[in-house]
Amino acid sequence: PHKKAPKVSMQLLWLSLLPCLYLASLCSAEQGLEFPSFDGKDRVLHINERNYKKALKMFDMLCLLYHEPQPAHKGRQKQLQMTELVLELTAQVLEDKDIGFGMVDSQKDAKVAKKLGLEEEGSLYVFKDDRVIEFDGELSADTLVEFLLDVLEDPVELISNPMELRAFERMEEDIRLIGYFKGEDSYYKAFQEASERFQPYIKFFATFDKTAKHLSLKMNEVNFYEPFMEEPAILPGRQLSEMEIVEFVHQHKRATLRKLRAEDMFETWEDDLDGIHIVAFAEEEDPDGYEFLEILKDVARDNTNNPELSIVWIDPDDFPLLTTYWEKTFKVNLFKPQIGVVNVTDADSVWLDMSNDEDLPTAEELEDWIEDVLSGKVNTEDDDDVKDDSDYDGVDSEGRHHSDDHDDHGDYDDHDDSD
Amino acid sequence: PHKKAPKVSMQLLWLSLLPCLYLASLCSAEQGLEFPSFDGKDRVLHINERNYKKALKMFDMLCLLYHEPQPAHKGRQKQLQMTELVLELTAQVLEDKDIGFGMVDSQKDAKVAKKLGLEEEGSLYVFKDDRVIEFDGELSADTLVEFLLDVLEDPVELISNPMELRAFERMEEDIRLIGYFKGEDSYYKAFQEASERFQPYIKFFATFDKTAKHLSLKMNEVNFYEPFMEEPAILPGRQLSEMEIVEFVHQHKRATLRKLRAEDMFETWEDDLDGIHIVAFAEEEDPDGYEFLEILKDVARDNTNNPELSIVWIDPDDFPLLTTYWEKTFKVNLFKPQIGVVNVTDADSVWLDMSNDEDLPTAEELEDWIEDVLSGKVNTEDDDDVKDDSDYDGVDSEGRHHSDDHDDHGDYDDHDDSD
Repeated sequence: PHKKAPKVSMQLLWLSLLPCLYLASLCSAEQGLEFPSFDGKDRVLHINERNYKKALKMFDMLCLLYHEPQPAHKGRQKQLQMTELVLELTAQVLEDKDIGFGMVDSQKDAKVAKKLGLEEEGSLYVFKDDRVIEFDGELSADTLVEFLLDVLEDPVELISNPMELRAFERMEEDIRLIGYFKGEDSYYKAFQEASERFQPYIKFFATFDKTAKHLSLKMNEVNFYEPFMEEPAILPGRQLSEMEIVEFVHQHKRATLRKLRAEDMFETWEDDLDGIHIVAFAEEEDPDGYEFLEILKDVARDNTNNPELSIVWIDPDDFPLLTTYWEKTFKVNLFKPQIGVVNVTDADSVWLDMSNDEDLPTAEELEDWIEDVLSGKVNTEDDDDVKDDSDYDGVDSEGRHHSDDHDDHGDYDDHDDSD
Repeated sequence: PHKKAPKVSMQLLWLSLLPCLYLASLCSAEQGLEFPSFDGKDRVLHINERNYKKALKMFDMLCLLYHEPQPAHKGRQKQLQMTELVLELTAQVLEDKDIGFGMVDSQKDAKVAKKLGLEEEGSLYVFKDDRVIEFDGELSADTLVEFLLDVLEDPVELISNPMELRAFERMEEDIRLIGYFKGEDSYYKAFQEASERFQPYIKFFATFDKTAKHLSLKMNEVNFYEPFMEEPAILPGRQLSEMEIVEFVHQHKRATLRKLRAEDMFETWEDDLDGIHIVAFAEEEDPDGYEFLEILKDVARDNTNNPELSIVWIDPDDFPLLTTYWEKTFKVNLFKPQIGVVNVTDADSVWLDMSNDEDLPTAEELEDWIEDVLSGKVNTEDDDDVKDDSDYDGVDSEGRHHSDDHDDHGDYDDHDDSD
């Protein structure tokens, strides 16, 4: 249903300029800030057994959206079309970067999908050199373009002066590694190879000079900084290999306090602990939110060795389109900081009462509450007005457990069939 | 052509759940992160002489998009439809906040537009209580929702402890004011009234307690912080009135170094100095970018009293959809920091050569270059090989003056009418 690109003639050239002129006039009479709008040219390929190898060869990078089969329902069809439009606009914006884009239907193209190792419907897979990077974030053109531009950058950034070191130290929200090397030797190469496996989600830095001393790094040593932690985990420099670094990262990857980011939000959300997330909402730009966040960081630092604890911090400013949805779903006021437990299967939740306007909880009070969550004393079930399944045992008239569709957690998992 | 909302029956309830389930399955099998998609329900009003008064009364806040007349060209029509869709989605997301949305056609509804004081096509005007706030930023649902949520907050934030003060001190990118008052007396009221005129673009804070001492604020004194400056401008507390504060803000408003923000990007861009902007691109998250930015801040601090100087800092991370457009238009590589002069009338530009990979310019070198720009020694015209449009004068078939829409600098300033 897409228009073909017109052959260029002078007349058409003028016509094709019009949309730009329009945008300029919609926004301002001045030049320099023209947002792109889809030009109608088809750039996204429909990948199948015949063309996938060629596509892989043709581009520096190939991005494939693995999607559910064409749905019968109109609303869902529209959704899929919108997603394709997002890909088209992304392809247009990145036209000069030698990136290919394609769609793979999980049913019609099941064979290709299997060959390429595509598994999660709704994910985008990026093929670059010999590796595959999964994107499981917000499917908007903004987020996707930023993500792909990040993938195009060098996976290791060099730090070569105190100012750059300060930049490194300020990135407390991110998981980041830094290594100290003599130069581009085999240890550095191992570090670089490892970095490619985590790009762009985990940031890798290296230094070749005395900057390392400020970090008290020894030669060939690698430090891993968990978000918001002051002290790094240390991987000593003896026999540093790619696999050792990769293993080290996996071991420390799940942070005690992690910020929800558009580029991997669904992946983070899927990484729940026993079906729940402890979620904290706080606007960093807001004095109240900032204060609450500082308390949270204290709690996280005190409990960084507890593998049972991983708090998801959401800054509502980063997700304007979800703010009112969260307010409705969780029945909380997001103009203020909040912390609660969310059941990821049904989005049922319980929130810490912080209605006393003047005082936020202290770090100790927060820790007590978190302990109650981890022990199950505070949970999302107690306040439910419908009873637990166990109460219904044998009573349910048909002997099946469907009477409480909105309540029965375990059940969803069984029906979960994303095709 | 929009569907009406179906009456609820059990069957339809299931059907209406499908889109949500779909979104959930496109993204993940878990609940809690469902992005909204337009539900097809018409919420945006077409405002005319008959309904505008009622609309103003009906809502706490009314947002009107003042747009060009329905264009004949298809591409431009589509653009206008997309803009309307952005408004529809925004209206849907903010459904529970008692905000009305409408469109005003600059031709068909010229009379209403005049009565309401709408002047700039493409701007959104927000009517709240007795004031009008113009939104001249990126017309995306994200930006618009965030902007409107900001407008709903209190215009003055209270600072009541050292942690909140730290939050205030960290907001170096924003123009912000802070006042010290005894309590909610007439001076505070004047401050509050003034704040409403600048909300949400300029942030107002107040403190009623000894937090003020850390800022060495005297009673009823107001301090104005220009972005990135350490020392505030001081408005003494004698006879503090709303108009005095407003006047004071206008006097200091244009910063020596200002960050381009989605919510007022076009307004910032229109506020050029003699038809040009000095533009610096730097990714704050990047060590190189951070370092360059620190140098820029030094230069800005040294030159804060020069009214001729206002550098626009753009962090490419904030505008992924514009990054490649800028790279093409300005012929620069935005993976690295850049600084240049841009002619806003034709987007012609000249960039400082920083190709020496190792060293960024020092503050002194940057200052020398900026001096050359301000004196006209470095300018965008010297390297032009194509001539002016003035060549086309008289050729335009209808004898109207559209041929030089894109070229004539001085002209724009005359039309400049910021009210």
